[in-house]
Amino acid sequence: MEIIIAKNAGFCFGVKRAIKLAFDTAKDYGKDVYTLGPIIHNPQVVKKLAEEGVNAVESSNDVSNGVVILRSHGVTPNVIEDINKNGNRIIDATCPFVKKAQRYATQLKNEGYQIVIVGDKKHPEVKSIIGYAGEGVIVTETGEGIAELLKHKKAGIISQTTQSRANLLKVIDESLKSAEEVKILNTICDATSVRQEEAQEIAKEVDLMLVVGGRNSANTTRLAAICREEIEKVYHIEVSDEIDEGWFRGVNRVGITAGASTPEWLIEDIIHRLESINEKMEKNTIRRC
Amino acid sequence: MEIIIAKNAGFCFGVKRAIKLAFDTAKDYGKDVYTLGPIIHNPQVVKKLAEEGVNAVESSNDVSNGVVILRSHGVTPNVIEDINKNGNRIIDATCPFVKKAQRYATQLKNEGYQIVIVGDKKHPEVKSIIGYAGEGVIVTETGEGIAELLKHKKAGIISQTTQSRANLLKVIDESLKSAEEVKILNTICDATSVRQEEAQEIAKEVDLMLVVGGRNSANTTRLAAICREEIEKVYHIEVSDEIDEGWFRGVNRVGITAGASTPEWLIEDIIHRLESINEKMEKNTIRRC
Repeated sequence: MEIIIAKNAGFCFGVKRAIKLAFDTAKDYGKDVYTLGPIIHNPQVVKKLAEEGVNAVESSNDVSNGVVILRSHGVTPNVIEDINKNGNRIIDATCPFVKKAQRYATQLKNEGYQIVIVGDKKHPEVKSIIGYAGEGVIVTETGEGIAELLKHKKAGIISQTTQSRANLLKVIDESLKSAEEVKILNTICDATSVRQEEAQEIAKEVDLMLVVGGRNSANTTRLAAICREEIEKVYHIEVSDEIDEGWFRGVNRVGITAGASTPEWLIEDIIHRLESINEKMEKNTIRRC
Repeated sequence: MEIIIAKNAGFCFGVKRAIKLAFDTAKDYGKDVYTLGPIIHNPQVVKKLAEEGVNAVESSNDVSNGVVILRSHGVTPNVIEDINKNGNRIIDATCPFVKKAQRYATQLKNEGYQIVIVGDKKHPEVKSIIGYAGEGVIVTETGEGIAELLKHKKAGIISQTTQSRANLLKVIDESLKSAEEVKILNTICDATSVRQEEAQEIAKEVDLMLVVGGRNSANTTRLAAICREEIEKVYHIEVSDEIDEGWFRGVNRVGITAGASTPEWLIEDIIHRLESINEKMEKNTIRRC
């Protein structure tokens, strides 16, 4: 069984930075260190941080006089105000690309555009951007029905950083049905599209695809969906223990990719597990892209 | 044989206005009245105007101390300067929607955008807009290869008024591959898309489609191409004399549409011709959409 590992699997720049900041903060302050919600959407990493004393809290009102790490998805200006009000120190681990999207939302608002965010309105990153976009903001993934909502003639479009360009284009298409002016500030992160394209290419070549990452991770879930467009056997797993040897019956090639919030050690765990399955079956063939 | 006539066949607002201005100018001035190039892309209309004393000249240097009508496609600022220099009076029959595209080109240039025009660079309308866009302007119909040309990070996109939204979207897609900011000022004329969509719907229903208009008319040619995507038997004709009775053997339904520069009387001529063919075959059935 040949194992093909995506070059662009795992931590992106923003996640790597956020995790490093969190472990450094744990070292520097030792106690009373908190993240607002899980720092990234990976339960295994969150557990490791908890062991170092960094705990996730639900609300900015749950902490006072402590150290609060803003997670990679960012927060709204109101939340920052609340954290400060409660006498906390802020360590900002917001992904720089998300911060850029927040800045662009402010810019488009000041320029008088009706803001459209291409994204999932329940995702914390999108919620944080909404906080900067002000009133009248429209959030959509496919653009359906927004032509009627765009009462103003000037639409300003930004994206959740992990969205696909296909979705962005759908929203632009719908906007052009009623808006005479459409300004797009492209906030899609290259790392996401590069990872997605690579995963799709690998999925075309293999019989089975393992997509590693938190079940609560939107980008990992999307990665699995993209692979499913190419082949039937796609498993979204968090840890190697979930792997069932029976999956690999009749499988000659396995592909592995992982979401932006999946740490290297979890991917390596899975490779080791596959190697041991392989040993039982025949000799290993591992190709790293 | 049932005959289905498109509601949106023939003269659009801009062409109607230009033709009226040309005939009025012929009446007001009587002589020394010229158009720069044919006023619209329809040889039959141009011939009628010539009978009233309005002649098309090739260059602004061919006329002095006369009356020069700027045709619906518009001209560059340099051409206007030349016409004025030669002591001519200008009657501006530029389509108001083309004038808007010219104004938008100036605006985007002043705002520091690298301008991309979605259109055919040989078309006089596009040539006129280029005159306002200044240096570094990119002209493209499909956007192929423009990602490399977009050296600036800010792309400003406008369209030839008769382009399809599908082409506009292709160009936006390509631009987003390298530009971080894309501003679209949508200059596609609704009349064009409405006419195109209606023609496509009719083509789906009929066995044969007649598309009436100048062979030098870009929008008529595009209309025929759109119909050809639906059915095989599509004839692009200028006048009723071109119609061959043999075309209608085994045909139960005929659709008629016409380009924006096709006058009503040419369409009526064609309907009469079909009616006489029908009389030979069976009873007429005419449906006007």
